[in-house]
Amino acid sequence: MSLVGPVVGLDIGGTKIHGCVLDGGRVVGTARRTTERGVEGVVDSAGELVEGLCRQVGIGVAALTGVGAGLPGVVDTTAGLVSHAVNMGITEAGVPLAALLSARLGGAAVVIENDLSVATIGAAHLLDAGDDVALLALGTGLAAGLMLHGELRRGVRGGAGEIGHIPYMADGPACHCGQRGCLELYASGAALTARWPSRDGRPASVALFDAAAHGDCDAVRVRDEFVAAVAAAVRIVALTCDVEHVLIGGGVAEVGTPLLDAVAGMIRGWEGTSRFLAHMAIADRLRLVPAELATAPVGAALAFARVVSV
Amino acid sequence: MSLVGPVVGLDIGGTKIHGCVLDGGRVVGTARRTTERGVEGVVDSAGELVEGLCRQVGIGVAALTGVGAGLPGVVDTTAGLVSHAVNMGITEAGVPLAALLSARLGGAAVVIENDLSVATIGAAHLLDAGDDVALLALGTGLAAGLMLHGELRRGVRGGAGEIGHIPYMADGPACHCGQRGCLELYASGAALTARWPSRDGRPASVALFDAAAHGDCDAVRVRDEFVAAVAAAVRIVALTCDVEHVLIGGGVAEVGTPLLDAVAGMIRGWEGTSRFLAHMAIADRLRLVPAELATAPVGAALAFARVVSV
Repeated sequence: MSLVGPVVGLDIGGTKIHGCVLDGGRVVGTARRTTERGVEGVVDSAGELVEGLCRQVGIGVAALTGVGAGLPGVVDTTAGLVSHAVNMGITEAGVPLAALLSARLGGAAVVIENDLSVATIGAAHLLDAGDDVALLALGTGLAAGLMLHGELRRGVRGGAGEIGHIPYMADGPACHCGQRGCLELYASGAALTARWPSRDGRPASVALFDAAAHGDCDAVRVRDEFVAAVAAAVRIVALTCDVEHVLIGGGVAEVGTPLLDAVAGMIRGWEGTSRFLAHMAIADRLRLVPAELATAPVGAALAFARVVSV
Repeated sequence: MSLVGPVVGLDIGGTKIHGCVLDGGRVVGTARRTTERGVEGVVDSAGELVEGLCRQVGIGVAALTGVGAGLPGVVDTTAGLVSHAVNMGITEAGVPLAALLSARLGGAAVVIENDLSVATIGAAHLLDAGDDVALLALGTGLAAGLMLHGELRRGVRGGAGEIGHIPYMADGPACHCGQRGCLELYASGAALTARWPSRDGRPASVALFDAAAHGDCDAVRVRDEFVAAVAAAVRIVALTCDVEHVLIGGGVAEVGTPLLDAVAGMIRGWEGTSRFLAHMAIADRLRLVPAELATAPVGAALAFARVVSV
């Protein structure tokens, strides 16, 4: 992946936009701001952030090679369209966001991509994890971003990696998707927060792992159930796609090494009684995506280069 | 995929070898024989079958463009090696079976490939199902053969598609893999036969579906549990890889349309309460691989063309 000249990468979320300037493979500028809602709001706030980043690194927008942007919702990268990005107030289908942002930026080349794909590209790059990875995104929900032999796997209906909606507990509670006991209800940031609400302002996941490390029996139980569900998600990814690396990311990754160690330890326990799993050596392929890494903005800039030959 | 001249495809199993001659995209000859055990036995029996097929279609072995062979066990197609094909009496690792069979056939070009991959290639071709498919093989075990955008997905450790060892019932019985309640214990030919042994010489699956269709309450219960597990396997494939078509094959496909209808009906029931699943439209993407199709030998011949440019 070679980028000639500076490229801006944007991670456009429901509340915030994170941006970076990538030049010669290095991040030379970063910025963030709130996301305005609706199509016009998103285009304006993204446009302003790009202009701010250019001022920050001392170039004009016209000097950019291009802009890559990751967005939630259903993204058609080839056509530059986004649909149903409801948490940004975009309820319409087929919004030509790439063209609108390009026009806002005086004709700059713009590529849009799904936010999970962008995070996967960025995490694989920043962790030097090769081109055959799954990013397990433990956020509000649970999904896996898949890059197989360098190719993003989105699926025929955009459903590739939707492992959060594979049932995990036969008679579990109702999921918003209409099924029961979905894995997302056990292995996601929202699931963890529901079982262990933060009492002191720290992220719920950090508070839980800390309390468990200090011997709180309730915390140990909640943590172990959460870890078992995350390990089950890893196993599903490994026994379907068998990728070279499974990267654990999303908000819950704020816990850091204790999360990685706990999930790897759970899987190693399984490997102790299963020669089949031991052969698969899944635990050895786990990596943590440090929460402080700008995986999504960097991945968005790299996504630009995947589409546009520069 | 173009084949210049006749190619022999072989499906080498633990007890039988099925072979065909593919010429100009058409099957012009078929044959089968028993498999002799051990490396020498497999090479000899495969060699004799190729010679017999050539006699059948009136050509010499030297006139073949080549031979493609599907084998159980761990197959390294690039190096032409097979390891641990224990049900053919090949316990060694790294056996150069492609070279040995080539030598046995006077230097004919030989390509070997994993049997599940070969069946997937053949099923996709014979059903005209495109190049983005999963073959759900319901045989002694349960595994999915994956062809994603035309590329076979074997995985880093050959574990791609090993969905049979994703746990399905939390406190289920012990699986030979060392885990408990694996999906293979519920959704495979062996699982079905264990719950409904054939009493009249017909395949167990055919007898079960027939008894259930005639209102036998026990049969209805066993059938519905089996169908639910197969539908769960389809859902796992759809929510991880989201392939264009999921093909239901393996020995259990002998049941025919009633199997396809039952699995599709189960998934449509889920879709009735889940908008997410309804959007995925999984049931519409199901196809049955008729048991009488020579998917594996035809796939083996096509596998030759994927590797050797002719």
